[in-house]
Amino acid sequence: MTLKRIDEVAADTVRMDGVEGVTMRLLIGREDGAPNFAMRQFTVQPGGHTPLHQHNYEHEVLVQGGFGEVQMGEQSHPLTVGSVLLVPANLTHQFRNTGDEPLQFICMVPVSFDCSGQCQPVPGS
Amino acid sequence: MTLKRIDEVAADTVRMDGVEGVTMRLLIGREDGAPNFAMRQFTVQPGGHTPLHQHNYEHEVLVQGGFGEVQMGEQSHPLTVGSVLLVPANLTHQFRNTGDEPLQFICMVPVSFDCSGQCQPVPGS
Repeated sequence: MTLKRIDEVAADTVRMDGVEGVTMRLLIGREDGAPNFAMRQFTVQPGGHTPLHQHNYEHEVLVQGGFGEVQMGEQSHPLTVGSVLLVPANLTHQFRNTGDEPLQFICMVPVSFDCSGQCQPVPGS
Repeated sequence: MTLKRIDEVAADTVRMDGVEGVTMRLLIGREDGAPNFAMRQFTVQPGGHTPLHQHNYEHEVLVQGGFGEVQMGEQSHPLTVGSVLLVPANLTHQFRNTGDEPLQFICMVPVSFDCSGQCQPVPGS
């Protein structure tokens, strides 16, 4: 079992091409023994954004604070507290903070993908 | 893709032996096309509790509001906003509201289990 407090978990700067002003707390991941999926909390500073990218695994997201928008494919949609999203595999997406306070959300991913052969660990899980 | 607001999702009364005062919103589940895991929000009323039970799949939990305790195995631990838990498979557990306001938490489960043979759908996914 794992039991911790969210504010005990370090918020690490996300360093990827196309990222601006984003930190991530890995709340529950492979090192905790998570067998199937990982829980992360992202904080995007005002004007910041995650990369516009895609990958062959899904996200499940719950917005906890702030205001922003998500681009999925060609379309953008507003985000605020209580927004819930399933971003399917292989859909281009980006989260952007459009407000003046941090945009914070929980983002779940599977811990592995491409399991038709040797499973690959999902980055950030 | 799925995009909704948490307050648009119906809060259904959880009817199971050993449950008292619990509703569940299925935020993202199999019907949304979730391929690996489901996101649910539980609300436990003051004095209420989930069943003391176990099952062969895990929970990942984030407490959003209220005060309570979780029993895992023989031990109980306090819960409050920002508590993060991994309840591993096959560990007896129960969530109890010990405060005077609703205890609210996100609880993730895999969408299927027992996948060594024909996968079984996880209840409430």
